[in-house]
Amino acid sequence: MSFHPLEEIIHPRAIAVVGASPAGRGSGFLSPLLKLGYQGDIYPVNPKYTEIMGLKTYPRVRDIPGPLDYVISSVPASQVLGMLEDCSEKGVKAVHLFTARFSETGRKEAAELEQEILKKAREAGIRLIGPNCLGLYHPSEGISFNEDMPAKSGDAGLVSQSGGATHETVALAVQRGVFFSKAISYGNALDFNECDYLEYFEQDPETRVIMMYIEGVRDGQRFFNILHRVTATKPVIIVKGGRGQSGIRATASHTGSLAGSMQVWQNMVRQTGAISAANLEELVDIAAAFYFLPPITERRVGIVGGGGGSSVLAADECEEAGLDVVPLPMEIREKMKATGSPIWDWISNPADMSIRIDREWDVGDMLELMAQSKSFDLLITFIRGHFHSVEEMASVDNFLKPYRLGKLEDKPLIAVMEEARYSVGSNGRGNHVSTIEFMEKVKSTLLAAGTPFYPNVGRAARALSKMIDYYQRKKSR
Amino acid sequence: MSFHPLEEIIHPRAIAVVGASPAGRGSGFLSPLLKLGYQGDIYPVNPKYTEIMGLKTYPRVRDIPGPLDYVISSVPASQVLGMLEDCSEKGVKAVHLFTARFSETGRKEAAELEQEILKKAREAGIRLIGPNCLGLYHPSEGISFNEDMPAKSGDAGLVSQSGGATHETVALAVQRGVFFSKAISYGNALDFNECDYLEYFEQDPETRVIMMYIEGVRDGQRFFNILHRVTATKPVIIVKGGRGQSGIRATASHTGSLAGSMQVWQNMVRQTGAISAANLEELVDIAAAFYFLPPITERRVGIVGGGGGSSVLAADECEEAGLDVVPLPMEIREKMKATGSPIWDWISNPADMSIRIDREWDVGDMLELMAQSKSFDLLITFIRGHFHSVEEMASVDNFLKPYRLGKLEDKPLIAVMEEARYSVGSNGRGNHVSTIEFMEKVKSTLLAAGTPFYPNVGRAARALSKMIDYYQRKKSR
Repeated sequence: MSFHPLEEIIHPRAIAVVGASPAGRGSGFLSPLLKLGYQGDIYPVNPKYTEIMGLKTYPRVRDIPGPLDYVISSVPASQVLGMLEDCSEKGVKAVHLFTARFSETGRKEAAELEQEILKKAREAGIRLIGPNCLGLYHPSEGISFNEDMPAKSGDAGLVSQSGGATHETVALAVQRGVFFSKAISYGNALDFNECDYLEYFEQDPETRVIMMYIEGVRDGQRFFNILHRVTATKPVIIVKGGRGQSGIRATASHTGSLAGSMQVWQNMVRQTGAISAANLEELVDIAAAFYFLPPITERRVGIVGGGGGSSVLAADECEEAGLDVVPLPMEIREKMKATGSPIWDWISNPADMSIRIDREWDVGDMLELMAQSKSFDLLITFIRGHFHSVEEMASVDNFLKPYRLGKLEDKPLIAVMEEARYSVGSNGRGNHVSTIEFMEKVKSTLLAAGTPFYPNVGRAARALSKMIDYYQRKKSR
Repeated sequence: MSFHPLEEIIHPRAIAVVGASPAGRGSGFLSPLLKLGYQGDIYPVNPKYTEIMGLKTYPRVRDIPGPLDYVISSVPASQVLGMLEDCSEKGVKAVHLFTARFSETGRKEAAELEQEILKKAREAGIRLIGPNCLGLYHPSEGISFNEDMPAKSGDAGLVSQSGGATHETVALAVQRGVFFSKAISYGNALDFNECDYLEYFEQDPETRVIMMYIEGVRDGQRFFNILHRVTATKPVIIVKGGRGQSGIRATASHTGSLAGSMQVWQNMVRQTGAISAANLEELVDIAAAFYFLPPITERRVGIVGGGGGSSVLAADECEEAGLDVVPLPMEIREKMKATGSPIWDWISNPADMSIRIDREWDVGDMLELMAQSKSFDLLITFIRGHFHSVEEMASVDNFLKPYRLGKLEDKPLIAVMEEARYSVGSNGRGNHVSTIEFMEKVKSTLLAAGTPFYPNVGRAARALSKMIDYYQRKKSR
C-alpha cells in the first residue's frame, strides 16, 4: 500500500518557524503549537533572538541540531529562496509558506519569484504548502495556526484556499458540534493543489465529511475526475469563491486564482455529484447534517412544535427547499382520537402546538407518533428557550425531556433553535447571561443525542434537502 | 379631519380582561399592562375571584364601576356572545378576542358561531380585533400582550395575522435596534382586517416603516388599492405565510385563511410597489435598513475590512443580491500612492485589509477614501469582535474608532458582525460572557451612529438591494 505524500508531511516529527518573533504574526505559529500541545520539537528561527516564548531560537535553519521535516515560513518573500537552500541542506520534507505577496499581487516580478521558488523546491525535493496561506490545523497532532482553535478532533476535513475562511469555518463548525480531523489552508496552490488535498482526504480514514473553499482550480480535468470518484464514498461540500465579476477580481488579488466560468463550475459540481454551498454558513449547515445524521434518501418531513405563523412559514420554507411536508396521516389522527384529544381533526403537519389545550399532548407525543409512522422520513422540532423564570432553566434534562432525544425509533431528528429565542436582553429580567449559558448546554445535549441544530427552519431545510439529494444520487449511482 | 376608527380604540381609557386568572394565559394580559405601566384603569373580570394581582376583580363586565372602552376576551368561544351583551350595555367600543377555536378549526359550528359573534358585535356597535390573536402592543400607552416586550417606542409599525410571529418579530427587531409605534396581531380578521390596519398605519404620524405578516387577504381589491397608495409614502414590507401546498393547509388551520394563488400575490406585490420578505428574519433585515438609513437610489457599494475568502464571498454575495461592487477608482489609488502605500496598485474593492502591512492604513482610512469618492453610494464594513485579550475589550469607543462612525461624509455605512466572531465558547479563554456583553455595547454604539448591523454580508446585501429597489421605484413614480 502506498501512502499519500501528504500523510508523512502532516505528521512532522519537528517543526521550525522561520521568521518567528516574540509578538505579532511571527509569534502566531509558535503559540498554537505550545497551546495545543504539539509533541515534536519546536524550533523558532530568527537571527535577532536567542529565545522566544521559552524556546531556544536559532539564527538559521541549518543551525538547528536535530532532524527537521517541516518548516513554517514567515519571512518576507525576498528571503524564501535563501531559506529553501538551508532547508535543502537540512533535509526538510515540506515548507508551509505563510509568506505572501507573490502572484496574488498582480505584479510580474512577484509572480516570477513564485515560479523560481517552485523550481528550487522541486530541485531540492521539498514540497510546498501555499504560499500565502495559514497552512495546517491538525488537532490530534497539536498543530494549529491559531491558538483559539480546539484541541478536540472530529471526522470532518476542510480544504480551503483562504486562511481566514479556514479559521472562520472552524469557528462556525465548532459552535455546531462539528470538529475536524485536519483543516488545510493552501492559498496560491503553487505545488500541492486542490487535487492533492482532496485525494488526501479521500484516502484518510479519519475523515468522513469533506468541506472545501475554492477560488480557482489549478488542474481542472484531474480535479473533475478525483471529485467524481470521491463523492461515491464521501460527501464533498464546496463553496466557490469568485462567482461574479467582482468576486473574480477579488480572487485574483487574493490567491492569484483564475476563477473561471460559473457555468463550467456548476456543470462540474452537478456531473461529479458534489454539493454546492453559497457561503461558509451554508457549508457548515450542510456539513452538520452529514456529520450527525444517518443517510436519508426520502424527503417526507414531520414538523412539530412551532406555533401559528412560525408553523406556516416552516411549511413554506421546507417545501421551497424541496422537502415534502406531507399531510398528517389518518393513523395518527385515529390514535389521537382514541385518547380523547379534542384537536385530532384540527391539528396538522406542521403540528402547531400552540393550539392544544390538553396538557397531556405535548411536542414529544407528536414526535413519537410521527416517529412510529411510516409516513415520515425525518422530523424537525422547534426548541424554545424563551424562559419565563429562572426556575424553568434549572435543568437541561427537564427542559429537553419532551423532545425524547435519541428515543424516536431511529427516526432522524433535527432541532431549530431560533435566534430570537435566547438572545441577550430579550427577556428583560437580568438573567440573560444564564440563559445563553443554559442554551449552550442545551446545544451540547442535543448534539450528544445526535440531533444537529439550526438557527432557523429555512437553513435547516435547505441543508437537509441537499444532504438527501446527495444520498439519492449515491443510491442511484 | 376624520380620525381612523382604530385611533380611539388603541388609546383606551380603561381595559377589562375577561377570563383573567392569577396564573396561566389568563394572567398573561394583566401582567404586561402592569409591567409596562398602562395608566388607565385595569379591570380583571372573573366570577371566581375577587382580586387578581392586587387588582379588584369583577364577576361580569356590567359590574365594572367606571367607564370602559376596551375589553380583552380570554373566555372560551361559547361564552363570547354573552360577554358581548354585557359589553354592549357597558358601552364598550372594541373587543379584542384572544378567544380562539372558531373558523380556523375547520368545523362548521365554530365557523357559524364566529359569524354570529360578528353579527352581534355590529348590532351593538362594537368593533372586533381578532378572534384568535394576541391583539395590541402599544408601548407608549403601556399596552402589551407579553411582558417581555420593551416599553420603548420607535417608528416601525407591525401588522400580523399571527400572534407568535408578532412576538418573534418584535424580539428579532429589538435586537437590531428597531422599535415599534404599535404592533397588532389580528388573527382571523373577522371585523377589522388587513386593509383597516394598513390604512391605520398609513395615516399614523408615529409610524414610518410598515411591516406585515399576512396569511390570507380578506378584501383583495381594496387591499391592492390601499397598498398601492401607501407605498408611495411609506415602505411596506410583507411576509406572506402560506406559499406552497403545505403552507396553505397550515394557514387554514391557523387563521382560517384562504392563502390564494402565489402568482396573484406576487403580481400584486410587484404592481403595488410593496417589498417581499421570505421570513421574519428577512422582514427585520429589510426594516432595519429603512429604519436607520437615508434613501439610497443607486447601488454602487464599497466593501472594507473583510479578509481573504470573506472579501471574495462578500463580493459574490453583494453582486448576487443586485448590488454593484465597482472596481476601486483610480483617484483612490492615486491618493494611496501619494502617501507611499505599497499596496496602492494591489488593493481592490472589496478592500481586503488582511493584505496590508503598513499600519498607517486601516479600515477607517479606506472607508474615508470611499466616502469622499463619488464612485460609491453606500459602504459595508466588517466589524470584527474576535478578541485576543481582555484588554482589547476595554473600551467600545476604542474598538470602534477605526470605523469613523457618523463621520463619513454622510455616506451610508452598514456593518456586518458575523456569528462566528463573538459567540460563546469560541475563544476558549473563559471570557466569552464579557465578549457577548461587550459586543452588545458595540451594537448599541453602531445603532446610535445610524449604522445598522447584519449577521452576515449576504443578508445585509439582500436587504439593502430591496431597499434600493423601493427608493428607485418611488423616484420614478
